[in-house]
Amino acid sequence: MLLGLTAGLAQAQPQQADSVFIRKIYDETLARGKSYEWLRELTKQVGPRLSGSEGAKKAVVWSKELMEKEGFDRAFLQDVMVPHWVRGAKEEAYIRSGKQKLVVPVAALGGSVATPPKGIEAQVVEVKNVAELEKLGTAGVKGKIVFFNRPMDPTKINTFEAYGGAVDQRANGATFAAKFGAVGAIIRSMTTLLDDVPHTGSMRYGTGVPLIPTAAISTNGAEKLSSLLKENPALTFFFKQNCESLPDAPSHNVVGEIKGTEKPDEIIVVGGHLDSWDLAEGAHDDGAGCVQSIEVLRVLKALGYKPKRTLRAVMFMNEENGLRGGIGYADYAKKNNEKHLAAVESDNGGFTPRGFGIVGTAGQKKQVMGWKELLAPYGLQEIGPGGGGADIGPLAQQGTALFGFKPDSQRYFDIHHTAVDRFEAVNKRELELGAASMAALVYLLDKYGL
Amino acid sequence: MLLGLTAGLAQAQPQQADSVFIRKIYDETLARGKSYEWLRELTKQVGPRLSGSEGAKKAVVWSKELMEKEGFDRAFLQDVMVPHWVRGAKEEAYIRSGKQKLVVPVAALGGSVATPPKGIEAQVVEVKNVAELEKLGTAGVKGKIVFFNRPMDPTKINTFEAYGGAVDQRANGATFAAKFGAVGAIIRSMTTLLDDVPHTGSMRYGTGVPLIPTAAISTNGAEKLSSLLKENPALTFFFKQNCESLPDAPSHNVVGEIKGTEKPDEIIVVGGHLDSWDLAEGAHDDGAGCVQSIEVLRVLKALGYKPKRTLRAVMFMNEENGLRGGIGYADYAKKNNEKHLAAVESDNGGFTPRGFGIVGTAGQKKQVMGWKELLAPYGLQEIGPGGGGADIGPLAQQGTALFGFKPDSQRYFDIHHTAVDRFEAVNKRELELGAASMAALVYLLDKYGL
Repeated sequence: MLLGLTAGLAQAQPQQADSVFIRKIYDETLARGKSYEWLRELTKQVGPRLSGSEGAKKAVVWSKELMEKEGFDRAFLQDVMVPHWVRGAKEEAYIRSGKQKLVVPVAALGGSVATPPKGIEAQVVEVKNVAELEKLGTAGVKGKIVFFNRPMDPTKINTFEAYGGAVDQRANGATFAAKFGAVGAIIRSMTTLLDDVPHTGSMRYGTGVPLIPTAAISTNGAEKLSSLLKENPALTFFFKQNCESLPDAPSHNVVGEIKGTEKPDEIIVVGGHLDSWDLAEGAHDDGAGCVQSIEVLRVLKALGYKPKRTLRAVMFMNEENGLRGGIGYADYAKKNNEKHLAAVESDNGGFTPRGFGIVGTAGQKKQVMGWKELLAPYGLQEIGPGGGGADIGPLAQQGTALFGFKPDSQRYFDIHHTAVDRFEAVNKRELELGAASMAALVYLLDKYGL
Repeated sequence: MLLGLTAGLAQAQPQQADSVFIRKIYDETLARGKSYEWLRELTKQVGPRLSGSEGAKKAVVWSKELMEKEGFDRAFLQDVMVPHWVRGAKEEAYIRSGKQKLVVPVAALGGSVATPPKGIEAQVVEVKNVAELEKLGTAGVKGKIVFFNRPMDPTKINTFEAYGGAVDQRANGATFAAKFGAVGAIIRSMTTLLDDVPHTGSMRYGTGVPLIPTAAISTNGAEKLSSLLKENPALTFFFKQNCESLPDAPSHNVVGEIKGTEKPDEIIVVGGHLDSWDLAEGAHDDGAGCVQSIEVLRVLKALGYKPKRTLRAVMFMNEENGLRGGIGYADYAKKNNEKHLAAVESDNGGFTPRGFGIVGTAGQKKQVMGWKELLAPYGLQEIGPGGGGADIGPLAQQGTALFGFKPDSQRYFDIHHTAVDRFEAVNKRELELGAASMAALVYLLDKYGL
């Protein structure tokens, strides 16, 4: 074992040949890359693709056909059952204060129930967090709409940290509000921008509380509501939404594969999620990750690279409101006794690369951080412990090392879960550099193992 | 001297207090920053501001008033004479091939002469570089329009390198073409994108050759022209432009200053250029650099920081087509016996920060690279030898250390020198992070000297 370990470490030293091959990966991706045109197809021809929707079905067909056209060794579907929530007719909302009636943009949160057909109108209590809500208690909340208005912290350098510090309101706000007798919950959109676009996203109901309707309000709407409340605490808020949860629907992960030449039973996954929110083209979230993952296999194939291990591009279904694809993929792996060495996910947008977060053993982290010198010339300076990705997360239990692609985070929450997450918001070079970065990592993982 | 040197080095070690203060700089800039709203004013209320234009005059007034309003110790103008080139009526251009007449987008290059009032129509020779042109010689070129069609290399990771490898065509193409008897020169726009937007920019005429008109063509237009030429080498190209160079005009650098408390005679400059191309709002180029520089002084003042040295925010005039402001500023410094310790410029766009390029002695580079640990948490990993900036360049002769702010370069040439370099192309957080990065560097330079 000691000998094996030493040999492994020696082998893991990057070589001049790696530097040359990685340069070729970037050249191919930047000069002849296909990811950008694929993304145009996925966003403009397929469009929004929430789990269970027609768009999601089309996306499954589209990506399988693409993998076949690109001549991967095989492309196949994995059956998964997914939640099927539908928004229904567009929401309506306004603030009524005295004679003033101010329309504000809202969007039902994914998983929310509808309001009664005529909508709900009630007084509003504004809180920043659950502690404030508990202080108000049933006496202060009953019969009212709770307005969660804690902004994302703009001083966080990584915007995902700011998101992490605010998204509890969206996920659990309705449950806490209902506990104290509220009739609805309105959540400030998850963005540091002040704008007029509501940001949807998933929420869940806790057990033992009434299911009250909940919606996101645009940040400008939230600011307005907050300032009007200071003038007139007795104002009322009206909203109407028509969403519902239908029975689970059959759907699929889509997997493309290039067979390994030396260790075909060791699998390296690179993936993103194929579903998107219904309001959006899902360009950054996560069309980008999907086309980048397919591009990784295309580029390695175009360069004539014969992987030692089996490489898979996986389009996970239903990350947004259920993670059924990610869970299902890990279940299939276990059932089929597949050994997954590593999984790389891109689900933080198609922005300019900064690095990779690693979930694995100390030894694995050390090994991959040892590749920094090879990757830093391409802007990948942030390689170290960090998150992997929601869809690949379930593989961790099988000992798979996880790698989360880490692009620059500054613009992500400008568009996240909104109608402006469009193809036009993606920069071609940034998208391609991400794909090349993932291909370089996959190449090193394949060549040196872990 | 040795003692002084040692003391200097010891003093240059960053401390915990620096880390705390730099965090405060980022907090102030991200939570209460003003640069984004200032940029909105500069781009939307002032607008395009080419040297000698009404817009440039307005921009001078706007920035001086802003510095006064922000309560800097003083704000003053420096007189400079600047080139005054005007575009005149919008250009027209088309490719005529057989019966086909295809309109293509062009923009006169800054400094170019006009065509005759009726325009020029001539056959076209396409070349990738001067060597190809020389090979064609007068026999192949005389009476024709030379079409320079060497693309920017998309495989360069830093797009400024790709620009550097192609921009000779724009700067000198007309001169070389005229040498062989061409009647005009058409230059492929400086971008890796394929789009319909012509990118203007400066050109200069060499001595001893006729002044022939020259214009940029959009990259899609260039692709079309190139493919039609393959079908029909005898096709003709028509273009008409009405630009002219008027006599030099009086203008100004605008300087805001906070006086140093310990070494008021040592000056640290932070700046950008106030002029922009006439087609553009000049948001990234270089409205961003201007508002970031003023923000540096505002933030340090807002935090109650009393600089040891004198800090200046300098709005240089006429970077785009003459550099008179940068040259003039250095001349004033010399004439007034001012000691400029360091100068920081932001003129690569208001994108997410990656680092700083340093022009200085080996010791200065080493010292500043020693601050990496303080700056890396903010995404500033690329701190090392590199370019300073065009406007601050002339200060190098006086021994001033130069620092070029280095934002991510991927999106810059999508918009550079075009009508789409608009406020909307700037992301608030990215702009603010740049300002904070510059403020952090200025703080360290002020505290530790060089």
